[in-house]
Order: sequence, then structure tokens, then C-alpha cells
Amino acid sequence: MLPEISRSVVMPAPNSPLEIRNYPIPPLQSGSVLLRALVSEVCGTDVHLYHGRLSGAPYPIIPGHAAVGEIVEIGGELTDVDGALLQKGDAVTFFDVYGTCNACWFCLVGKASTRCPHRKVYGITMGADQKPGLSGGWSEYIYLLPGTKVMKLPSSVSPESWIGGGCGLLTAVHAIELANIRLGDRVLVQGSGPVGLSCAALALLSGAGWVGVIGAPMQRLSAAIKMGVDYTLDVTLFSREERRWRILDSTSGRGPDIVIEASGNPEAVVEGCELARDSGRYVIVGQYTDNGSVLLNPHLHINRKHLEILGCWGSDYSHLWRAKETLSRFESRINWASLISHKFTFENAFEALSTVESGKAVKAVLYPK
Amino acid sequence: MLPEISRSVVMPAPNSPLEIRNYPIPPLQSGSVLLRALVSEVCGTDVHLYHGRLSGAPYPIIPGHAAVGEIVEIGGELTDVDGALLQKGDAVTFFDVYGTCNACWFCLVGKASTRCPHRKVYGITMGADQKPGLSGGWSEYIYLLPGTKVMKLPSSVSPESWIGGGCGLLTAVHAIELANIRLGDRVLVQGSGPVGLSCAALALLSGAGWVGVIGAPMQRLSAAIKMGVDYTLDVTLFSREERRWRILDSTSGRGPDIVIEASGNPEAVVEGCELARDSGRYVIVGQYTDNGSVLLNPHLHINRKHLEILGCWGSDYSHLWRAKETLSRFESRINWASLISHKFTFENAFEALSTVESGKAVKAVLYPK
Amino acid sequence: MLPEISRSVVMPAPNSPLEIRNYPIPPLQSGSVLLRALVSEVCGTDVHLYHGRLSGAPYPIIPGHAAVGEIVEIGGELTDVDGALLQKGDAVTFFDVYGTCNACWFCLVGKASTRCPHRKVYGITMGADQKPGLSGGWSEYIYLLPGTKVMKLPSSVSPESWIGGGCGLLTAVHAIELANIRLGDRVLVQGSGPVGLSCAALALLSGAGWVGVIGAPMQRLSAAIKMGVDYTLDVTLFSREERRWRILDSTSGRGPDIVIEASGNPEAVVEGCELARDSGRYVIVGQYTDNGSVLLNPHLHINRKHLEILGCWGSDYSHLWRAKETLSRFESRINWASLISHKFTFENAFEALSTVESGKAVKAVLYPK
Amino acid sequence: MLPEISRSVVMPAPNSPLEIRNYPIPPLQSGSVLLRALVSEVCGTDVHLYHGRLSGAPYPIIPGHAAVGEIVEIGGELTDVDGALLQKGDAVTFFDVYGTCNACWFCLVGKASTRCPHRKVYGITMGADQKPGLSGGWSEYIYLLPGTKVMKLPSSVSPESWIGGGCGLLTAVHAIELANIRLGDRVLVQGSGPVGLSCAALALLSGAGWVGVIGAPMQRLSAAIKMGVDYTLDVTLFSREERRWRILDSTSGRGPDIVIEASGNPEAVVEGCELARDSGRYVIVGQYTDNGSVLLNPHLHINRKHLEILGCWGSDYSHLWRAKETLSRFESRINWASLISHKFTFENAFEALSTVESGKAVKAVLYPK
Repeated sequence: MLPEISRSVVMPAPNSPLEIRNYPIPPLQSGSVLLRALVSEVCGTDVHLYHGRLSGAPYPIIPGHAAVGEIVEIGGELTDVDGALLQKGDAVTFFDVYGTCNACWFCLVGKASTRCPHRKVYGITMGADQKPGLSGGWSEYIYLLPGTKVMKLPSSVSPESWIGGGCGLLTAVHAIELANIRLGDRVLVQGSGPVGLSCAALALLSGAGWVGVIGAPMQRLSAAIKMGVDYTLDVTLFSREERRWRILDSTSGRGPDIVIEASGNPEAVVEGCELARDSGRYVIVGQYTDNGSVLLNPHLHINRKHLEILGCWGSDYSHLWRAKETLSRFESRINWASLISHKFTFENAFEALSTVESGKAVKAVLYPK
Repeated sequence: MLPEISRSVVMPAPNSPLEIRNYPIPPLQSGSVLLRALVSEVCGTDVHLYHGRLSGAPYPIIPGHAAVGEIVEIGGELTDVDGALLQKGDAVTFFDVYGTCNACWFCLVGKASTRCPHRKVYGITMGADQKPGLSGGWSEYIYLLPGTKVMKLPSSVSPESWIGGGCGLLTAVHAIELANIRLGDRVLVQGSGPVGLSCAALALLSGAGWVGVIGAPMQRLSAAIKMGVDYTLDVTLFSREERRWRILDSTSGRGPDIVIEASGNPEAVVEGCELARDSGRYVIVGQYTDNGSVLLNPHLHINRKHLEILGCWGSDYSHLWRAKETLSRFESRINWASLISHKFTFENAFEALSTVESGKAVKAVLYPK
Repeated sequence: MLPEISRSVVMPAPNSPLEIRNYPIPPLQSGSVLLRALVSEVCGTDVHLYHGRLSGAPYPIIPGHAAVGEIVEIGGELTDVDGALLQKGDAVTFFDVYGTCNACWFCLVGKASTRCPHRKVYGITMGADQKPGLSGGWSEYIYLLPGTKVMKLPSSVSPESWIGGGCGLLTAVHAIELANIRLGDRVLVQGSGPVGLSCAALALLSGAGWVGVIGAPMQRLSAAIKMGVDYTLDVTLFSREERRWRILDSTSGRGPDIVIEASGNPEAVVEGCELARDSGRYVIVGQYTDNGSVLLNPHLHINRKHLEILGCWGSDYSHLWRAKETLSRFESRINWASLISHKFTFENAFEALSTVESGKAVKAVLYPK
Repeated sequence: MLPEISRSVVMPAPNSPLEIRNYPIPPLQSGSVLLRALVSEVCGTDVHLYHGRLSGAPYPIIPGHAAVGEIVEIGGELTDVDGALLQKGDAVTFFDVYGTCNACWFCLVGKASTRCPHRKVYGITMGADQKPGLSGGWSEYIYLLPGTKVMKLPSSVSPESWIGGGCGLLTAVHAIELANIRLGDRVLVQGSGPVGLSCAALALLSGAGWVGVIGAPMQRLSAAIKMGVDYTLDVTLFSREERRWRILDSTSGRGPDIVIEASGNPEAVVEGCELARDSGRYVIVGQYTDNGSVLLNPHLHINRKHLEILGCWGSDYSHLWRAKETLSRFESRINWASLISHKFTFENAFEALSTVESGKAVKAVLYPK
């Protein structure tokens, strides 16, 4: 028998106190799946959401766009993309992007589904009061609409491993795809949050000859070192000029072949252009929200350097799939679960948000209780 | 018998009056070629050179990095890259880049010979007093060092066609290579100087579904229209907001799939980022000198748009070769010789420079007399 | 008021006489579109279908996978991919591929929708007796299921232009995308049927420096010459050795940079490997049915040549869209309508098939009456 | 003082007994380098050379195209591509390819230096009697001509590590570059000789989700397992049908995303086409000599599969450089030195050849004494 009520964390409005509300569990449509949440991610995006920085967000919202749950009920016979039959009790995750239409110009001609106008995201652009509801991961039960891409976790990937990677790992898989690393390339990552750390980890797994990370605070750089990166630089301890000198010194004087920006700081973009070697590649993935403009010199920073710059927005299902394969295969090399530095329950969701906002967490997660 | 003296135009120092000097013609080394100039290009780079804007330029300099000449003498048996035997009387041109080493990291590993530290350029980085001399195109005789890439002009390509394209055509071939146009793509070119016009022409020849040009003055836009572009916009008549509205209106509301910057104006880079469609491509080729910095918003202009930006610096021999093939094949479609709006002789070289600086010329050329 | 009956040409079973049958017109579901056929293509695939060479074809079948029709009725408010509202009386075409799922591994991870297991094709894999029926172009009325990609023809593209290109043009757009032609590349097309001729036309429009066609019979090679190709070779008049010598002679002794196979003859694949220059590219698009094996030497034909070979199967919606843009833009350059050499009515559908099978037609089309 | 005499192993003619000859050490030209050999590779190519299978080989030949030596003398001040000053006593290796011209069409336009007509190879196409001589690695002293690319071994790379990788590692770096592996891709290698094992090792280092090897004999497959590959299949124990079934079973029923042929057996090419998944990629690198033709079905094996096939010939300097970086970085992960299964001295050079020919060796090396 289906449960009747879900305890869910709700953001009622920007900068309003979080609430725990009880929602009725809607009847199951054909093609939909009901999950009981096992663990959910607390992401920097949730902090932006709390502060009302994402325009058009449909408050009240149940946050949480990356979660692992156990299947409670299934509307019919469904398989995941690998052909595995979904069954009650399975530990699964789902792709947070919902509703890309496969019918618009961007889906069909531009082949850029991340720019589809019908794209929605669980826990971000789907409101708690929109039917059928339960559309975020910070919820005892999560209702996955027909067409949502559900994926069974391999037995080798624990819920904590998956959320240790979280949505940042998907983003990093996309960024690394664009980075196109070849054997021996030197790769510098700017930023040591979840996306930056996952980029560094994936660069290590992709044959890079040297991987460096510029970031802060110390515990995040320590996590990077534990992963095996060659070089870290605490951005709070060295001036830009000193950073430049040190990175050049570590990369044969040419600068890194590939730089990946995952910091969210607009000034990092100018620095990244300067650091990348001539004829190098620069992937910009961290500028998820508008933090203002910076002074850039097109001659010095782009044209004369023959620099290739790749903006990287969002991810598609292939990145989820590759994240799963990567976690499963390389779990003995990279311990994504160990990135979880803070664990909270729904009751302490606000503390979870504050911890993420403070930058003290490497990764924070939320359990129903 | 070899001639003994060459009349050559010289820039003695930045912002000093041009002079015509007589230089002795050096004895011919094995592997070298002596040309009698037929026609030479007057390029915007020569204006920069005159004003001392290219750091480290070895004055006095005989300018002229694109020229067509007739072979007067050859140091041994030489062939061009197509295997054609070079012979006295042949009309030839040469690749202005000299001395890329094929031994450094950039030549061998980075495969970016435009960043080779040994790269020199006729008429720009080779001084008139350096031995053996006669290293620029504004010279009655031009001395091509051993290893210089000499190329026979096909009979279908007149000296004026070649110089009508000039060094800008090579740069445009490189930019179009990076632009990677597919059938039906909408391509916008910013700038209507020689590089911009050649980019527009090559886009037309490459299957673009729509080609637009933003530029000035009118006679350059008229040249673009004669070539067959679909849309021109006089940058002096419309505000940035109006330009944006008009370009979007001409490109299904999405913006061009590909934007090519060939204006030299740093502000154009911000506008280009705004105009390119989401998940589009932006080739920046016009920022040849440092004209300062601009305010760019990494979130809005790069990351959220999932924009690909390709800085394009210089050209390599393949671009010269493809320029030749293109001129030869498409001369009935695009009349590059007709881009020559002004013709001067050595005596009026300063007037030639002034005309180019004024922007009044589409393309100016120089004849020995 | 909707019409009640459709006169449709039917293939009842392999190698059985074609019949004209009357089918009731089904009621219109939401999202579906009913067309009155204006003109339909007779394709080599229809010949294969007639002879039962396509395994699993669900006879009886109404053939015709490329057609232009006028909208008679629409199930609700629908737009095409360019955002144009579909209206009664519009001349439209549709993408013959139906039902790719956007949910399987090939659609989502492999990004190869042409290999989606749910892919169906109007007029080929959809049977006349399957509900709702009218699923082929050789029918007075055509019933387009919800989700079918309908596209308005631009006013500049006549129904005859569209069908003159036909499904072969879409395939050619795909092949040219893989061919990745750069300015000055020499491109050889093997085969002068509809796909081959369209490949040659598109190569001409994509900046190729030289385009050659090997094929037969003469009227097809004449069509190629009218399009502007540089070189044709009648495959029936010259031995393989002579062909090789002539093609090398026309391509600087190196062979074409790019070869595109569009002949359907397996032996052409070996010849194409031999003709392509070292380090060249070979697109194989014509081997649509199994015509047996050939002796290929991996050392000589692939490895030592450092050859890149790209098998090209089917097309996706982007190729339809680019075909439309290309037809619209370049109609003054390439007259696709003029490829139609034979016109038939439904009553003479068998004669149409025979003409296509004989190779005498460049392109044959079918009108309801 | 320079040594005067070099003991060198010589192949006087095809299938003739090897000899040890004394050669005078030529005087050192400017730009040249004299090495005292530390260890040299015995490669399958040397077996081909012995049997006269490489047409045009200039007997007598001192074999050995991969060697590590100590610098005895230098003709002037030279640096390697990383800018390191070469000094007496340095342990160095060199790129076996010599003389690519950087002036022909293939070097400059085709950008395929492996097809340069002036390309020569130490120990293969340079004869022992050609001046100045000592042009192979099976020689006490090796004379490196001016322009030869010399590379210092990092201190972390022992001579045995370098030769354990050997020329096969360079070839594998090239093949992996073409394979373009992405995170989670399943990669199958056909062949377990030095090239195949290095391909498997590099795939493991490049983020592959699964790496399999089909080969023989057992000790080579054991070496693959020690490296960490996921799956091996002894080609002598299973029929082609069984192999197919097993590989499909290990790759979700789709087949590997990427197959790399490194077997030298032409039949493997057909099998590889069959095994690669639809829309997959197939790199053919092992067909170094002509072993005849095979029956291939272009429809089934290439076109319908939408297969991408990349012939991979030779290597360029970048592959040497990336091999060095990879060996240096990943030596704790992959022990290339351990691939050396057999060690010989010059006196036993014929036994070394026989061992390699027998397939019993994983890798054999030669010491002067």
C-alpha cells in the first residue's frame, strides 16, 4: 500500500525561513515512479535559490535536484536506459532535467538540449504547488513524472558515492568532455568546490600529465591532494601575480594546456585566459549565476593567444550515464563519498544551507531523518 | 645579368617620413630567389608599423608582407609545394611567415606554428639593414631567403586578384576554417575591412544559409553586397540595441549560428558574444593590436550561452595554399581584384598609408612606378 | 468537411502487382495532420521494397517516404520547428523518420538517433493495414501521426524542387556533414544517382576546389555537368586502372582529399579507398542494401594510407532542416527540380518503378493524377 | 677523446646471418650527437626487415629504431624540445623519424608528416654504408644527424621503462589520440603484442569504463591483466562466433564503443568491424605490412553500422613527447619495464630476432654486452 503523506522541506519564498510541510502523495500515473528518498544533495544552487537569485523560480519550492531514493511504486513496466527493469526496492537516481522536448530547433537542429525552452529541473524550476507535486529531493517521497529519466545505481555505487559526486559530477563530466584532454596535457582547475574537485578528479582519470587546483579553503585543497592532484594553490594566500608565476613555473613556462574555470568568480575568467598557454583551451563552467562583469582585453587574452574558450552550460543525460560508469569503475581510485563533509536531517536543512554558503563544507547532504 | 640596385620604400623610424632608398642587390645564395615586384599590398598592419604600434619592430623597415613578383633569378633548382619548377619570369607570391623552426614545442607538440618563437615576417619583423636585406614588398626587388615558401600564381589568378585578397584573405581562410560552417548556417561578420570582406566572401562560398556584415563605410558595405551577402548594417547609423534587434530579426530570433569578429574594435567582442545564438560559435580574428579592455560578463556572455569562442592568430602555409585554390576556382563568383579601390606608386607611399588609415580604401596597392 | 476516402497505391506483397485501393480516412487525433498529396518521390528504396529486399517490411505497404502535400486538416494548434503555425492549405513536407524515442541508449548517450530501435519510416516500415493507416506518400491523402515532424516549405521552394532533391538530398546533407569539406579540397563522388548528384551539388556549394563524379549513364553525368562539376567519368567506358590514372591526373597526382561513395556497388568501396589521397577522408553512404562482400586489403587500403572512413547511415531532422535552407538559398545555383526526368500518375506507378530500376531516370515522381 | 670504433650488429641482406662489424666513428658535424647505446629494442619490424619484407630497405642495415643512449659528444650547444640543454652523460632517446621536410604538400597543407616523401627512419630506411653511418640502435655507438629530435629521459624514466614501451608505445599514443576515448567508453583491443598492450594500458589511463584484449599467448594476456584490463580472451581458444558472443555479453549487448586493431592479422579487421557497436569507432593500427586481403561487406560492416574507421600510420614527434610524459607520470600505475620478458646482447641478436618472431616474448631488448 502506498504511503499517504510526505514530509518535505519547503522554501516558501526568497529569504523566508524553511518549513517542513506534509503533502499528500498523489495517485500514480502510468509511467511515473514514486521514490522514498535515501539521501539528497545540498548544492550551491540551493543557496542561490534561497536568496532568490534564480529569476522566475516558482516558490514555494521543494529544493533538491540530486537525490537517491528507493522505488516505492511504479506506474507500469519501466526500464532504465541500460534496459534494466525498474523494480520496487531498487536504489535509483534520476536526471534532474525534465521535459526537453525533442521537437524544437535547439533539440533537433542545434543539438543543444540544454537550451531547449521546455527544459525544467526538479527542485529548481518545478514548484511545490504545481500538480502533481513532490518535485524536489528534500522530500520524504519524490514523485517522478512520466518521461523522467530514472537510473538504477550499480551495486558498486553507494547512495553516498552518488551524492558525493552529485550534480557537480555531471557538470564536471560535461566540462571534461569539452576539455578533450590528451595524454600528457597539463590541466589547471580554478575552484575547489564540488564542481572543481570533480573536474580535477576526472582530469586525473583522463590521462592528464599534470593536474593543478587553485582554490580555498584548506580542507577542499586537502581533498584535492587526497585525490592525487599534483599541485594546489590557496587563492587566499597568494596574489594574482604570484599565482601566475607559480603556475607558469609548474608548467614548463608555457602555462597549462587546458584550464577549467569552476570558481564562480568572474575575475577568475580573466586570470584563466592569462594562465592558459598560447593555443590552449579554456572551459568556463563555473559562472552559473550573474556576478557582474570584468575587464577583459580581447587582443591579449583571446586573439593573440589563439585561445579556444568553451562555455559549458548544464548537462544532458549522457553526462549522468558517464558519471555512473565512472563512479562505478574508479571508486577504488577516487572516493567521491569521502567528499561528504557534513550530514544533516530535514530538521536542520537551514543549517545545511548555511554551511554550504559559508564554504566550510566540501559537500553537504540531507537525510529525511 | 642581375640588376645591381633596388629602389625601396623605407620606414626609418616610427612616425618618421617614408623614404625611398637605393639598396645594393645581394649575391644570390643557394635556395634563395630574387623577385622583381609587380604589385604590393598596403595593409592596416603597415599603418600600425608606421605609428610604432608593433613592439620590437626593427626599424628601418621595408614594409610590405604581401606582394606578387616576377622571378629574376633563382639559387638552384627549386619547386613550389605543388611540385612546379620555379623559373625565371614566373609570377609568384610567397608566404610572409619565415623561419618557423619545426623543432620547438609549439611547432612539434602544440602544432601551433603561429606561436613558434622563431617565426619572422617579411616586411614586419625583418629589418632593412639586416643581411641580406630587401625583405619587404615595397621594394623594386625582393630577396627571398632559402626556405621561404614561394608559390606560383595560377594563370587564372592575376597579380591584382592575389593582392586584392592579400594577407587578409589568408587570415580569413584561417578564420573560416575555425568557423566550421555547415550548410544552412547563418554567419555574421563584424567589420568590413579586407579581412571582414574576405570572411564574408568565403562564408558565401562555404554553404552558409545567410551571411550578414556589420561595418562601415558605405563603399565597403557596397562591396559586400556586390559579393552577394544577404544583409549589411552600417555600424555608424544604428545603435547597439537597434543592431541587436535587427540581427535577431534576420536570424529567426535566435541570432547567428556563427559570428566572426574582424573589426579591431574591442567593444565588438562584447556585441558579438551577445549576438551569437546560444550554443553558437564565435571566431575572434580582428583584435590584431591592443586597443584596450572591455567589460564582459562571463555568466551572460559565455557560460549561460554555452558559447564557443575561438581566438584566431596569424596563418600558416596551408591558408596561403587554400587561398590560391579558392581565388583560382571562384574568380567568376567573387572578384577579389575589384576590392582594390586605390592604386599608388612608391613615390606616393605615404598617401597610400594615409588612405588606408582613413578607412576610405577598401584595399590599396602599391606599384614600383 | 474532411474527405472520406483516399485512393492509394499499395504493394500487397513482394513482387506482386501494385494495386490502387480505397482507404477510409481515419478521424483526426490531436497532434496529427492530414495532407492531400501534391507530389511524391519514386526512390530506389521503393524498388528494393517491391522486390522484398528490405527484411521485415510489413506488407501491404503504401510506399513513398518523401512527399509534399497540402494541409487538409490539423488536430489542434501545431507549429513547425521554426515556430511557424501550421495552417490549412500550407504546402508542407515531413520527416519520414518517425518515433525515435529520445529515451534509449542510442538516442541519449550514443547520440545516434538513426540507430534508435523504435525508429520507424513512413512508406517503408509502416504497413498499410496498421492503424490509423495512410502512412505513405503514394496516397491521395497522407495521415501524419502526432509527433511527426512537419515542415512548411518556404515559398521559394516548389514542391518539385523539394522532391527533385528528395530523400537523397537529406542523405547527401548528412554525407557532406561527415565529409567536412574545407576551402580548396578536391572531392570525388562515386555514383550519379540522386544521392550522388546531390552530394556533388552540395560539395560545389561548400567551397570544394574541384568536384568530380564517376558514374553512368550519360544523362546523369550531363546533369552533373549542368550543376557545375569539374570532371565526370563514365564508369562504363573506362577500366578501373584507367579511371585511377585519370582521377590521379586531375588531382595533382595525390588523389582526391575526400571521396564520397554513393553508388551502391560494393566494388566501388575498394576503388574509393585506392583513389582517396593518403591521410584523406572517405564517406561511404551508398551501401544501403547488402550486395555482398569485396576483397579489401587493410594494409594497402586503410592503414598505410592513414585513411579515415566514415560510414553514413540515414539522416536525422537536422538534415531535413538544412536541406530546406539549402534549397531555398541556392535555388538559382542548383536547379534540383530539373533533376526530375520522369513524371507519372498513380495509375502508372509500376512504370515509375521500372523506370527507376532501369537507371534511365535521374529522378522520377508520382502525382495522384 | 672520442672513441674510434663502434661494434655494430648488421643485417647484410635479407635472410642472411647477422654479423657484428666494426665501424669507424665519423667526425662530429655541427648539430649532431654521438650516443653510446645503453639498451635497444628488438621489434617485430626488425623481423620483417630480416626477412626482406620492407621494400626498398637499403641493406646492409644496422637495425634498431628505438634506443636509449648516453651522450658521448655533441656538435655544439643543443637543447631538446623542452628547452633542456643536452650534455655529455645525459641519458637520452631520439625520434626514429628523420628528415620530414616541412616543405612539401603533406607536411604543410595535408598536415600529415607521416606521409612526407622525405621521411627516413633510423634502423630501417638508413643504410649502414650511407655516410656518416651508425644509423641504427643495435650499435655500440649511434650517430644522430643534425636535425634529429633528441629527448632527455626524465630521471623517473629508466632506460628499460622507455624501451619497455618502445616504438609500440609511440604508435599506441597515436592510436589512442585517434580513438578519442571519453569517460565510460568501452574499449576493445585486438592483439596483445607491444602495440596492443600499450593501447590497452593507455586506454586504462584515459578514462575508459571497460578495457578488453583479444590476443595470445597466455603470458601476454597475463601482462594485460597485470596492467588492470577488465577482460581478456585467448584468440586461440575460442571461435570467432564465441568471441563475438562473449564480447557482446561484456558490453551490454551493444559491442565496444571503440575497437583498436593491433594484431597485424587482416581477418581481425572484419571481426573488429563486426564487434564495434553501431555508430562506434574503429582504429586500425596493426596492419603494418601487407598480409593480404579479406572479404568485407561494406553494407553490413561499415554503412549500416554508421561506423567510423581510422587508419593510423606511424607517429610524429608529439607522440614521442606524450609517451615520455605518460611514462613519467604513470610509472606507478603501469610498469612498462616489466613488459621486457627477454634480454640479449649483441652476440645473441639472432636469437633475439627468433624469440620475437616466435611470439614468445612480450618485449625483447638488446644490450651491447
